[in-house]
This record gives sequence, structure tokens and C-alpha cells, in this order.
Amino acid sequence: MSYIGHGGKEIVERVLDKEKAKEAIQGLTQIPVRRQIAHECISLSYGFFTPLQGFMGYADVDAVCKDMTLADGTVWSIPIVFDMSDEDIKKYDIKEGDTVLFTYMDAPLAMFEIEEIYEYDKKFMAEKVYGTTEEKHPGVKRTYEYADKFLAGKVTLVNEPKFNEPYASFWKTPKQHIDAFREKGWEHVVAHQTRNVPHTGHEWLMKYAWFAANEDLTVDTLKTGVLVNCIIGEKRKGDYIDEAILLAQNMLRVAGYFRDDVHMVTFTLWDMRYAGPREAIFHAALRANIGCTHHMYGRDHAGVGDYYGTYDAHYLLKSVKDKLSIKPVFILENWYCPVCAEVTCSAFCAHTKERQKFSGTLIRSIIIDGVKPTRLVLRPEVFDTVMECAEKYGFGSPFVTDKYLAERQPIFTLEPMEVGKA
Amino acid sequence: MSYIGHGGKEIVERVLDKEKAKEAIQGLTQIPVRRQIAHECISLSYGFFTPLQGFMGYADVDAVCKDMTLADGTVWSIPIVFDMSDEDIKKYDIKEGDTVLFTYMDAPLAMFEIEEIYEYDKKFMAEKVYGTTEEKHPGVKRTYEYADKFLAGKVTLVNEPKFNEPYASFWKTPKQHIDAFREKGWEHVVAHQTRNVPHTGHEWLMKYAWFAANEDLTVDTLKTGVLVNCIIGEKRKGDYIDEAILLAQNMLRVAGYFRDDVHMVTFTLWDMRYAGPREAIFHAALRANIGCTHHMYGRDHAGVGDYYGTYDAHYLLKSVKDKLSIKPVFILENWYCPVCAEVTCSAFCAHTKERQKFSGTLIRSIIIDGVKPTRLVLRPEVFDTVMECAEKYGFGSPFVTDKYLAERQPIFTLEPMEVGKA
Repeated sequence: MSYIGHGGKEIVERVLDKEKAKEAIQGLTQIPVRRQIAHECISLSYGFFTPLQGFMGYADVDAVCKDMTLADGTVWSIPIVFDMSDEDIKKYDIKEGDTVLFTYMDAPLAMFEIEEIYEYDKKFMAEKVYGTTEEKHPGVKRTYEYADKFLAGKVTLVNEPKFNEPYASFWKTPKQHIDAFREKGWEHVVAHQTRNVPHTGHEWLMKYAWFAANEDLTVDTLKTGVLVNCIIGEKRKGDYIDEAILLAQNMLRVAGYFRDDVHMVTFTLWDMRYAGPREAIFHAALRANIGCTHHMYGRDHAGVGDYYGTYDAHYLLKSVKDKLSIKPVFILENWYCPVCAEVTCSAFCAHTKERQKFSGTLIRSIIIDGVKPTRLVLRPEVFDTVMECAEKYGFGSPFVTDKYLAERQPIFTLEPMEVGKA
Repeated sequence: MSYIGHGGKEIVERVLDKEKAKEAIQGLTQIPVRRQIAHECISLSYGFFTPLQGFMGYADVDAVCKDMTLADGTVWSIPIVFDMSDEDIKKYDIKEGDTVLFTYMDAPLAMFEIEEIYEYDKKFMAEKVYGTTEEKHPGVKRTYEYADKFLAGKVTLVNEPKFNEPYASFWKTPKQHIDAFREKGWEHVVAHQTRNVPHTGHEWLMKYAWFAANEDLTVDTLKTGVLVNCIIGEKRKGDYIDEAILLAQNMLRVAGYFRDDVHMVTFTLWDMRYAGPREAIFHAALRANIGCTHHMYGRDHAGVGDYYGTYDAHYLLKSVKDKLSIKPVFILENWYCPVCAEVTCSAFCAHTKERQKFSGTLIRSIIIDGVKPTRLVLRPEVFDTVMECAEKYGFGSPFVTDKYLAERQPIFTLEPMEVGKA
């Protein structure tokens, strides 16, 4: 069985088994890394970012910024970099050619073979990736916060994360995704990018995308699936808690709005950059790497504020679609229309006065009210799931609070491992 | 501007202007033809049946029966033939090489250049085209009723039909269809085949097919249209009256369920053969000839009774799709589900107990009751239109009655023309 991902490349998998790992890490310099870097080490090692083998060097970063490709020409839109302060480089006595051990939550996580230490103009990077240098853009802010230097090199996982529930039920590596699709007999898989609890507008989007992705497959046997691939990463106050996102998305299938054989929920560890069109391209690579053949894109994909036009992501995707390993499915803005008595969209519904646009604010206010809403807007089973998650995981709230940020259960744990002295 | 239809062939148009026609028909033997033949002469002459230039000869009919192609290899599924009894052949003194004048409603209609007079085994034809020799199949019955001989040859319209309202508003020749699509900026057009007043299940089908047909066109500007191409032809008691079909389909756009710029209603003169899979192939050719790029096919397409499996049309289309000039869009069975609170389909909805299947019988009973139904099943504007048509065109009934069959207003009229003695 072959596992081919973005750019037609073999899916990267850089994971040492326990015994080899124990031996390999002996005596390595230990460098504790922050959550973002730990998550990216995991994603890199399992091949979510194929063809990347580790954190990018100067040539790749520069090509990403200037040409939206890697140095070898493969389409790539967002720098995946590891940063370090001059102070830390000195403190850990790090130089090109060294191999070090990244630790996270006081346990070994991954080996990092340092190939290059370099600087890059962060303002230039921000401008190219985000189309703006304004620090209030969260992706720009993240860019400006990178430390003095970038360190490039291959990453190898030495300690596989053990996911806690409910995450464990939804975790799959790229190869495990592909195996699961094969087992289901899915020839086409259309990815849905989300960090949301689904309302009927999201459901509508997935259903229409299913049909578009089904293409010329006959429909007496179902060979097309929707993969709801949730983004689990940096949380901000007011976001839905991760547990509610996963379980509420899953409930659409459990409660029968999608059949068992056309719907699956998984997640990817990734901190949203809100890069809009460039993030859309990144999602295309990411979902190609987990075996999807199609990717749905609605309005304002992965944007923030007013930085990007409603359909800018569609334009950029169109401009490079022949170089992508996944087919974009473009979906329009939808709304609930009481005249149509259904969720409908800007291609169809001409009831301009009557339409009721979906908004996160509307749905949040419904959830905050705690009164079960109409099933035309939010499925009652989804509502119940969100409320259960609030109790079980959210300290009473389905939305991220300071308490959740401080005390939430960890997504995964890492087993302790002996490293020995450097 | 080029006009390319089925099989990549230039759209046929064999229509003489008034002056040339007057001259050409002088002295020709006049042969009155029945409604089916008159309609087929019109369809042939305007190119709806491109690449056919007229009624088929033996080689084409035999290839259609045996290989589902014309003699030249172009996919074709249903014989288009002109039949005549030995008695009439004798009476009109007809022989190969003659040109005769078809008349209809006591007026000249088309010239027919007789190239061949032949016999064909009707039982064999029925078996091949319909997959059965049972006379209770309406297509088989029509086949058995053909007279002793078939006459092949080119047909040329000498008297263009003047359509009466409401037909006139929906009439377009193949070239006029293509011009209209160009004017609307439609790059993709998906055909909907219907002889029905639309319920929300049909609307659902058209909306999903629109998305599937939109393919990779961006959605900020709409370049895909739905063409509702109604079949106007033989009527049977209990059918919807033709006027109600056209005006009710059109009402979906007028009432805003489809925007002005994505929806159009027209019709084609054709007597349904109920050939199921083979009729689906015929529809693919027909709609390619009026400029459609896609054709939607639901369950039981153009079938009758239990002669064909639910998705047999899909299978046959798949087997020849590379040879078609139109892309089939396969759509599943749908129903209204009160749990989903929407029209949904067999790929999605798992509420097996709750689903409420659409049936012609259900919708008819709603209409017969005359009580405005829920907009979830039948749009109130559609219901009102059907009721108005019943009063205006149906002698009080939206369904075909004996009175309608006998006294309905003609679909079109033909101007009288002098022919002169043979």
C-alpha cells in the first residue's frame, strides 16, 4: 500500500519505536519547547506537513514568502519554523550539526537535528504571508513574537503522545486516516475545516460539498465521505472548548443527520494563523496528507477581521489548483430563509428581505441562553452535547474561560523516559 | 459563433425560410402525419436530435438496437423512425427517391426526402430498446403499433410552428438555447428533465445538481445555470396538464426559490418512451444539443413499472460517459425528514423510521384536496399556479381529462400555405 500526500510525495513518518528511541536520546541536550512547537513536532513527525521532514531552513522560508512554494517548487504557503533566542542558543551551547532533544511537559518528545541557524526578516515574512504588517492580526503578532533566530532541521518523534478522551477517539495519523478511508471504501473524501460546533449552515455546506465531491461516482453504493477535520490548537477566551467541537461534530453522525458510512470526525494539531487565502492553501496540503481528495471552502476561509475579501481564498486556490494534490470545492454563503423554509444560499435564494444570516454571535447567544433552539438552526442533539461538554470539560461553560485555559485536562500525555546526562 | 451538439457535431438546422419554402413545396404529394411524427419533424429540423438529419434508415436503426450507436459509431439509444402502412405507400404511390410534403393540422409542415423504405423486426427492436417485449410497457406498445414499413430520409421544416401562450414564452430552438446561455454568461448548464409540477424534492435535486455542475467555477460570480427542460408530448389521463408544468416550474424562479440568473425553463417536443436507461442516454444527447454541459439523473430516470432497477440509468450512463457530450450528475433518492426538518437523501439521513418519501400520489392528493400544503413539501406559489392553470387551461382540473385531451388549446398553430396540385 502506498501513502502519497501533498506534492505527490510519500507521506513522511519519522517516529522511532520505544526501544530505539530510548537508545537514541541518551545524553542529548534537553530543550523544553512551548505548546505550539510541541504540537508542530508531532504534526511534522507523523507527516501532516508532508513533504516537510522538520522545521524549515532559509531557502524554504524565503521561497514560501516570495513564491508560495518550497525551494523545490512544491506549493507551500506558511513557514513552519522553530525559533530560539540568542540567549538560549548560548545557554544550550547550540550549533549547526548538533542533535538535541525537545522536551514537553517534562518528558522527551522529539529529536531535532540542527542543520541551519539563520535570521529572517519578520516584517517581510508577515507582509508576504498575511498581506499585512499590522500587529493586531493574530498571525502577524505570532510572527513578530518569534525569537531572534530560526533553527532548521529534521524532527523525529521519540515519544508518541497518548491522547486522552475524548481526543483519543478522534485521533488518527495521516497513514491511519488513509487506512480508515480504504476500509470504508471511500474513493473520494472531502475535507471540512472547522473549529466550530456545527449549526445547520455548516451541515448544509458539508452536504453540498459531498455531492460536489462525489463527482461521477454512482450513488447506489456510497464511495464518498466527508471528513470533518477539527483544528485543535491555541485557544482564546470565548472559543468553543475543544471537547465540545469534537463531540458536537461527531453527534451529527450519531444522531443520524449523516449516515455512518459517509461521515467521520478527526482532528489535526495546528495553531490557526488566520492567514485567509494562504491558510486555505495550507489546509489543501494538510488534507491531501491525510488522504482527502477534495476540500470544501466557504466564504471567508480562515480569515480574520477585514484583511481578506470574502472569496479571496477561492481566487488563490484557483490560481494554483493544478499544483495541488486535492481538488477545492467552492461553496457559497448560506443562510436560513423562512420563505424557502430551509438553509439556502446566495446562488439560489432571492428573498433578500427575509433571509436570516448565520452568525457565530447568534449561535453563541442561543447556547448562552441555554434554551433548546429550533432544529432548523441548531440540532437539539448538538445542543445537548455542547451542554454536556460544558459540564464535563468546561467548568460549566461551553466556551473557553480563564479557568479552562489554566486547568483544562491535557489533550495528551507523554510517558516519562530516562535521558541520562549530556 | 459555433454551435456544437451531441457527438461533437454541428447543430443541425434544416428550416426553409417562407419564400423558399413556398417554392419548394409546390406540387409535392401531401401526406398528413400524426402528432408524434409532426413533433419529431419539428425536433429533427431544429436540431434537437443532432446529428440526425431526418428519420433513420435501416443501418442506423440496426446499430441503435444492437450497439446503442448510429451506424457511424455516435452514441444513440432510441430509434427515430417514420412508419407507413403498405396500404398508404400504395395509396400515395411512394418510392425511394421521392420527396413528399408532410402536413399537420391541415397545413404544410415539412418536406421528407425518401431515401429508403425498409422493414425491421419490431419485437427485436422492443427487446433491445426497452429490455422487454411485454406490450404493457408503453414504449413497447408504441413500437408494436408502428405500421408495416419504415421510411428513412432527411426532413426539412417548411412552416415554422407559432407557439401559443404559455408555450411561446418557453420555446427555444437549440441554437436559441445556446445563445441564451451565452447571454447569461453561463459556462456550465445542468439540465433537469421533467414532466412534473415541482415539489421540494425536485427543487432539492436541482439545487444539489447545480453545485455538482458548478465544479471548479468560483462562486462569487455565478456562471452555472439550471435548465429545466420540460418534455411536452403525448399526454395521458391523470398527467399534469402541460401549461401547469411549464408555469409551475417557472414559478420557482419567479417566487425567488431560484435566482433569476441561475434558472431557466424551456421545453422540448418529445413523446416519452419510458425506456429508462436508454431514455437517459437519449436525454443526454438531447440536452447536449441544446447547449447543456451537465445533466442530472435521479433514481428511476424515465422508467416505468418495475422494468428497470433504481439506478440502472446511472450504470448505463457510466458505461458510455466518455462518448457523451454532456456530463451526467448522479443524484440520490430524497425525502422529507421531520427530524432533519429538511429535504435530505439516502446518502445522509439515517432516520429510517421518520422519513416521508415523496410520491406523485401524495402530491396529487394534496393538489386534489385543494388545501394549500406545507411549504416544506410544495411551495405555496407553485400550488397557486397549478390551481390557476387548472381554471385557465384545464377545464377546472390540473390533471389531464378526456375533455382536455379533446379540447385543449393547441400547443402551436401552422399558417396555411398554398401547395398546388401534385
